[in-house]
Amino acid sequence: MTNIVGHFIDGKRCEDHARLQNIYNPATSKVTKQVALAGKETVEEAISAACAAFPAWRNTPPAKRARVMFKFKELLELNADKICQLIGDEHGKIVHDARSELQRGIENVEYACYAPELLKGEHSKNVGPFIDSWSEFQPLGVVAGITPFNFPAMVPLWMFPLAIVCGNCFILKPSERDPSSTLFIAELLKEAGLPDGVMNVVNGDKVAVDTLLHNDNIKAVSFVGSTPIAEYIYTTANANGKRCQALGGAKNHAIIMPDADMDNAVSQLVGAAFGSCGERCMALSVAVTVGDDAADAFIQKMQNEMKDLKIGEASEPSNDFGPLITQQHKDKVVGYIDSAEEQGATVVVDGRDITVAGYDEGFFVGGTLIDHVKAGMTCYEEEIFGPVLLVVRVENMQQAMDLIDAHEYGNGTCIFTRDGEAARYFSDNIQVGMVGINVPLPVPVSYHSFGGWKRSLFGDLHAYGPDGVRFYTKRKTVTQRWPSTGVREGTLFSMPT
Amino acid sequence: MTNIVGHFIDGKRCEDHARLQNIYNPATSKVTKQVALAGKETVEEAISAACAAFPAWRNTPPAKRARVMFKFKELLELNADKICQLIGDEHGKIVHDARSELQRGIENVEYACYAPELLKGEHSKNVGPFIDSWSEFQPLGVVAGITPFNFPAMVPLWMFPLAIVCGNCFILKPSERDPSSTLFIAELLKEAGLPDGVMNVVNGDKVAVDTLLHNDNIKAVSFVGSTPIAEYIYTTANANGKRCQALGGAKNHAIIMPDADMDNAVSQLVGAAFGSCGERCMALSVAVTVGDDAADAFIQKMQNEMKDLKIGEASEPSNDFGPLITQQHKDKVVGYIDSAEEQGATVVVDGRDITVAGYDEGFFVGGTLIDHVKAGMTCYEEEIFGPVLLVVRVENMQQAMDLIDAHEYGNGTCIFTRDGEAARYFSDNIQVGMVGINVPLPVPVSYHSFGGWKRSLFGDLHAYGPDGVRFYTKRKTVTQRWPSTGVREGTLFSMPT
Amino acid sequence: MTNIVGHFIDGKRCEDHARLQNIYNPATSKVTKQVALAGKETVEEAISAACAAFPAWRNTPPAKRARVMFKFKELLELNADKICQLIGDEHGKIVHDARSELQRGIENVEYACYAPELLKGEHSKNVGPFIDSWSEFQPLGVVAGITPFNFPAMVPLWMFPLAIVCGNCFILKPSERDPSSTLFIAELLKEAGLPDGVMNVVNGDKVAVDTLLHNDNIKAVSFVGSTPIAEYIYTTANANGKRCQALGGAKNHAIIMPDADMDNAVSQLVGAAFGSCGERCMALSVAVTVGDDAADAFIQKMQNEMKDLKIGEASEPSNDFGPLITQQHKDKVVGYIDSAEEQGATVVVDGRDITVAGYDEGFFVGGTLIDHVKAGMTCYEEEIFGPVLLVVRVENMQQAMDLIDAHEYGNGTCIFTRDGEAARYFSDNIQVGMVGINVPLPVPVSYHSFGGWKRSLFGDLHAYGPDGVRFYTKRKTVTQRWPSTGVREGTLFSMPT
Amino acid sequence: MTNIVGHFIDGKRCEDHARLQNIYNPATSKVTKQVALAGKETVEEAISAACAAFPAWRNTPPAKRARVMFKFKELLELNADKICQLIGDEHGKIVHDARSELQRGIENVEYACYAPELLKGEHSKNVGPFIDSWSEFQPLGVVAGITPFNFPAMVPLWMFPLAIVCGNCFILKPSERDPSSTLFIAELLKEAGLPDGVMNVVNGDKVAVDTLLHNDNIKAVSFVGSTPIAEYIYTTANANGKRCQALGGAKNHAIIMPDADMDNAVSQLVGAAFGSCGERCMALSVAVTVGDDAADAFIQKMQNEMKDLKIGEASEPSNDFGPLITQQHKDKVVGYIDSAEEQGATVVVDGRDITVAGYDEGFFVGGTLIDHVKAGMTCYEEEIFGPVLLVVRVENMQQAMDLIDAHEYGNGTCIFTRDGEAARYFSDNIQVGMVGINVPLPVPVSYHSFGGWKRSLFGDLHAYGPDGVRFYTKRKTVTQRWPSTGVREGTLFSMPT
Repeated sequence: MTNIVGHFIDGKRCEDHARLQNIYNPATSKVTKQVALAGKETVEEAISAACAAFPAWRNTPPAKRARVMFKFKELLELNADKICQLIGDEHGKIVHDARSELQRGIENVEYACYAPELLKGEHSKNVGPFIDSWSEFQPLGVVAGITPFNFPAMVPLWMFPLAIVCGNCFILKPSERDPSSTLFIAELLKEAGLPDGVMNVVNGDKVAVDTLLHNDNIKAVSFVGSTPIAEYIYTTANANGKRCQALGGAKNHAIIMPDADMDNAVSQLVGAAFGSCGERCMALSVAVTVGDDAADAFIQKMQNEMKDLKIGEASEPSNDFGPLITQQHKDKVVGYIDSAEEQGATVVVDGRDITVAGYDEGFFVGGTLIDHVKAGMTCYEEEIFGPVLLVVRVENMQQAMDLIDAHEYGNGTCIFTRDGEAARYFSDNIQVGMVGINVPLPVPVSYHSFGGWKRSLFGDLHAYGPDGVRFYTKRKTVTQRWPSTGVREGTLFSMPT
Repeated sequence: MTNIVGHFIDGKRCEDHARLQNIYNPATSKVTKQVALAGKETVEEAISAACAAFPAWRNTPPAKRARVMFKFKELLELNADKICQLIGDEHGKIVHDARSELQRGIENVEYACYAPELLKGEHSKNVGPFIDSWSEFQPLGVVAGITPFNFPAMVPLWMFPLAIVCGNCFILKPSERDPSSTLFIAELLKEAGLPDGVMNVVNGDKVAVDTLLHNDNIKAVSFVGSTPIAEYIYTTANANGKRCQALGGAKNHAIIMPDADMDNAVSQLVGAAFGSCGERCMALSVAVTVGDDAADAFIQKMQNEMKDLKIGEASEPSNDFGPLITQQHKDKVVGYIDSAEEQGATVVVDGRDITVAGYDEGFFVGGTLIDHVKAGMTCYEEEIFGPVLLVVRVENMQQAMDLIDAHEYGNGTCIFTRDGEAARYFSDNIQVGMVGINVPLPVPVSYHSFGGWKRSLFGDLHAYGPDGVRFYTKRKTVTQRWPSTGVREGTLFSMPT
Repeated sequence: MTNIVGHFIDGKRCEDHARLQNIYNPATSKVTKQVALAGKETVEEAISAACAAFPAWRNTPPAKRARVMFKFKELLELNADKICQLIGDEHGKIVHDARSELQRGIENVEYACYAPELLKGEHSKNVGPFIDSWSEFQPLGVVAGITPFNFPAMVPLWMFPLAIVCGNCFILKPSERDPSSTLFIAELLKEAGLPDGVMNVVNGDKVAVDTLLHNDNIKAVSFVGSTPIAEYIYTTANANGKRCQALGGAKNHAIIMPDADMDNAVSQLVGAAFGSCGERCMALSVAVTVGDDAADAFIQKMQNEMKDLKIGEASEPSNDFGPLITQQHKDKVVGYIDSAEEQGATVVVDGRDITVAGYDEGFFVGGTLIDHVKAGMTCYEEEIFGPVLLVVRVENMQQAMDLIDAHEYGNGTCIFTRDGEAARYFSDNIQVGMVGINVPLPVPVSYHSFGGWKRSLFGDLHAYGPDGVRFYTKRKTVTQRWPSTGVREGTLFSMPT
Repeated sequence: MTNIVGHFIDGKRCEDHARLQNIYNPATSKVTKQVALAGKETVEEAISAACAAFPAWRNTPPAKRARVMFKFKELLELNADKICQLIGDEHGKIVHDARSELQRGIENVEYACYAPELLKGEHSKNVGPFIDSWSEFQPLGVVAGITPFNFPAMVPLWMFPLAIVCGNCFILKPSERDPSSTLFIAELLKEAGLPDGVMNVVNGDKVAVDTLLHNDNIKAVSFVGSTPIAEYIYTTANANGKRCQALGGAKNHAIIMPDADMDNAVSQLVGAAFGSCGERCMALSVAVTVGDDAADAFIQKMQNEMKDLKIGEASEPSNDFGPLITQQHKDKVVGYIDSAEEQGATVVVDGRDITVAGYDEGFFVGGTLIDHVKAGMTCYEEEIFGPVLLVVRVENMQQAMDLIDAHEYGNGTCIFTRDGEAARYFSDNIQVGMVGINVPLPVPVSYHSFGGWKRSLFGDLHAYGPDGVRFYTKRKTVTQRWPSTGVREGTLFSMPT
């Protein structure tokens, strides 16, 4: 059946159809395809293919490996429309937003093209008399990635291009909710010249995940998802002798200082809060206003701005954001808004009852603004992952920072101010891994690294960028001395040939 | 009682004497002192002191932190004789060997002096139009080190100078067998100008270790010891949300190629195998000879060389090595030699019945050479940690490499050859983290990093050097844009002052 | 007239035809085109266009500038056949050799794609209390390149992609002997999306060169050519306040050690000596044999190997090399061979009287091997730049090294040996900038830097790679402190908006 | 005669007394000592000693070379009082200011201690199949430094510790006006363990300078002084095939923005303008006030602040600054003030007629503040090098920046503002090499590099820090392939031993 999304193993489509799961169009709630859920054998087949491909690939010069990535970048750009359509069909993300996601992913491919530079070791002459020493960064072997539904193109592209260009072979298990764009992208690598077996995709569920986590040939696991799962993955992978980095949940705050350029702050935050329907681990979901004047001004301007938000189907470029991923998730988001109201907050703009003409069954929730939120409320403590912006009012900047530091998560944060000193104090002291100064989504560019603090990331090294290179390689240190042999001095003149 | 070795907390000696354990002079088997075993409260007191010292220390400029290390280096050199004597008294290491150990440790202090260079982040101008981004490497907070008996000065010096100069506060739990030199060294930091509470030492046993592993204020743990404990430490620390690097056991092989300069190889290996009585994780304990000619030549020359080995007490500089650390450990080492004989190997030089005049009760074992060892024998599979050199005969280099790669451990290894091609093939392909070419103890210098592969190290990052810096810091990425404010253009000319 | 090769200024062909010079097909000696020699005004027009383009280009984010280079790489690969044909028509280089040249040049474009990584500055937190400092690497402005005939594609590609991606605008003056491929390549940049004026090509002679050297808007000059011109360019540019790197002549020696794999050495050297008709600054033109046995073996095997050399026209892929660039240059090369004979050397293989069927008028000289060459002979002291391999016989390695170190030039050198110690001693001590160990043409890859020592290079920084980035940028160091303003503490709460 | 300051060559004092020149105490105008001016032979003797010491020193491992610097730092700190007194006696710098100068110099010694880190090359595995390549940074040989009177300790310490730790030997020609502290410092290196001949000091004049500039054994020259001499040194050194960096004059502007914290700006600038009597190439000598309100406020506050300036003799710590270096220089500074008055500026605070009780003959000029200065006035166009602060009034920030960019010099500059956007625009666009944001003397710390733009520095590389390392080393790139030899495969089993 053509509507089944299968696996990509050893350069070939592999259809293991024993177990299937529905894929929905979230704008219509209709089932459009089915995804095959890999059994243990299928995952092991992928691992075997990767193991077989490894020796030749690790010996391929980095510059040559990088050339596959140069070609891959070309192909991603050529096929951008198709990729964005696949994302829209299964995730509901508006086409321009999908294009942004893909662009960010392509930037990670560009970074992978730098491999010869990134893999340089350090060479020390004369660490002792006539003794030299240098470091090499060798690939780990076969490594795996497990990725979430919300960025089906970008998050996988954070992982496999860099892992592969470092000389590893890769098994990707994408989200089973929107696997098609991911699978398509992976297949482009073959067209870009990657040898079969170096890149493999298995769709699946916990069976696939646990197979990867328990197989001795998997040397490292990269994960992006929720914090409880991240913690499970991290602990299990470590207990099984694997290197692991597991990125979890977030609750990203922006401090609105009284001296902020309020128009700028509001226009930035409307996108950062509601873009992609809030289904982003870097979504800016809490505005912390300093002083009631700032709060009132902020809320008034934000209300106005939100009137122009247009919600609807993925392929219509004038839409601002689309539906949530599933009905269950919609129910959960609505439940958070209900709880806010019940726990004493004020719903200023209410997106619960939104209807989108022609898409009555879609999983839509409108942009929602909630004032007078306080620490301890359910909507504040948990990650909503929906188009809901909370406002917490504080009296001074220190209270704002204390609030942020007290939260379980420490992924991203931001301050809006014109003041150099406030910005520097904030970025220096806040206990969050990615900090924006007048930048509400401080996602590091591909040549820096992405990672939160506290329970937003488990592992020593951040994702992609310089930390990604270190994660996907193991250090070897060589120390070398050559004893005198007589060859140079001429006492040992002839040698059998 | 002055003979109790206590703790050093918040800049003061702290004597918690509830539980005590004997310290022996291993050359005489006499109890010379007692070490206090810290209770949970004492460890928590140290953690509290460290937490209190952290805010001011993390804000101290790196160059100023480094100046403490410059002074510390001076003091270590000034006090070298005393430190080496303390090592000798409790560990039995000969004075010149203790001096080498200390020198290696001082080199790690030298590296810590580079802090301003090591802590540089990466600054990117215009990651987008008028947007800049940079990385900062911030200290973790309070971190802990747990160190083994065999290098009471060096291994702690791998850890705390770098951790501290990166802005962290430190709790060290040294080995309870020979804690005095470690404690003394730590106290020199106070004299070097380190604020109280930044460095703390708690002596103890599993109570102390488990307190460290379960306390939320400990952000990272560095460990060196045996593989089973390393694995326990790593898993427990990770499960408790801590960063961890845990270095375990080793079985380091040297390949003796037929073209090796045999005199050089033997003179190098005699030190690498028997130095410090073989109680080194980088001890070279297996010689793999390629071809019987090489084997026979090697064994003959090694036998000759071993005749000159002089065994005895620590303070006599003409001695080559001293006793093992305890009677139990001596029994274990002798047991391995017995088993080798039983399992079919040939004991060529036998150190089991050695006596040292005047030190009849000391835990001495003499240098031992065993030929015809094979994979599978107990003496081959396990780490002996004694003055025992095994010889495994193979027919070609590939067999030698396969043997090494099949072993559980992958700490260090070495090849003796004059041939560029053989050396390069070996260092490229061998599955071991530290590789020597005609260098039998390829311990990386302090400005590179120390770490084995396979079950010799648990964690992503190696010890000390560049990896050490990354281990003791967390990455923060800042992204900054300044909206136009009118200040520059002059439309916003006055500001209240 | 379509057969005139003009200029490329501000995104347009510019034909300044006041002065013309013939372009020859060196295989036929026929005039095939004419090149326009730019007058002062034309060069100034190019500089003006570059100055006008600079402000916008320097503000374009590095990642966006790099994307032009990604596209440029694609276009170079798509147009490779045409480029190689243009090289062959005017330079005479065989098509496979032109392809190698182009490939090396494309690798420099790949390196330019790494710009966001290469332009990172160093960021130091707390250089003093609450004071930060970082470095920025800003473009210089308008910079120029002056390139030789022997690599019309590769040498320009060493320069302008890196200069441009660093944010500079560029004026290229290629060789007037074979300018067509260079001009064509430069124009591809426009197709790749480079804004007009950022890249400009002016053909010309000393008039153009001197205009560039004396114009205040030219901030730096890169030159590759002969040593006397390099010295003139360097001195003049420096006196006029410009940064300059000027690469000059070479005389590259290979030491043939008695333990060398002679078959390998010969098969490597035949290409390194005669490829591109010896018209390479990295051509290996002197073999220094250690011991008469090695000399005799080398000469015998080389004679045999040279029998298979096939000389002819550029488009025939089975040819090994083609003609020299001009009749004058052919006369000069023949003169060097004559002088060797007169001064006492032995011409073992003589290429002086070679004829190529169908190309009687071509500027061909055959592969020539001369034995018993000695220091002081004209053929030894000067750069021949033709298909002539000299053999100097010495008795030991030290003599070989002394010979090399005594020569005026220090571009490249090589040793053939199997011995680690000899190789290490050689590479450590030889006074030459690029050293090969069993690699006869040790041209650094694009992510390292190219440069000779002694009178082979004038300037502090080598060409391309990391040094190229430093050459094309100027360091700015910013030190920043923010005085407390009251904004953060809340004493200065409102600010006019 | 004990009052003659001679030379330090090959580890010994060398007294070549053919020509002598007076040394003054500038606070009393008395001749206190005489300096010997080296003849050509003496300089050549120093060069010979350095050449002789080079081979062993370049082969000394960097870590061991660094240990000399560790010790040197200790000795500088131990001898700080004596050094500062020598500076005060001959230069007139107040003791606390001399201590600051020395501290900055010691920081350069600290940086030199990082040598093993700084000299790491880049190692690339598999640049082609089984081909590796790496870079080495080798010392140049014998290099020279020529330093000015205004920082007799600090500027030499910018140069020789780094040059020496990189493996070079050094000839220093300090200022003949205040050579004693420099000579004393250099001699401490011997006590620190430096082998004789590695560091040499020759006092002298143009004879010594020209000998250095024309001797083939001098491979590089570092110079700090005035722009005309810098240009002469640079051009001459380059023409003679030497690497050169020559730092010249300055005119450093601070922009005072209307939103600046005026109290902070004034308290910072009073030190930056008048410290060391304005005899600093980083002295902040022009305040550019934006808007008349800022100008008036600034001038009023500065006038008040200047009332407290205390001028006098070096050894009195309560003094703020001391005399100028010579009577001629005093006359020149007074002449600039006179010219300002004549050309229409307003002398607000006049230091011309100052008298210092007990030091009537000293070369004192008091702190001087001149308002309404304009471009084109002599006092504005030239470097005064005295305690004179000019105020130029402009109407907006762009005018301030245009003024700065139009000046011949581009050493340092600063902006006082609270505004992030203004600061970023300024630091990005201003054509000056060292930029302060609320930091009036933006001298880079020792682990960054010092260098101006425009006619403030001749050369590609800045002084000290990372650029200093690159300046004092030459890049060598090694490319290595090992042909199969049979040793590994076992076909070539025996080799004569």
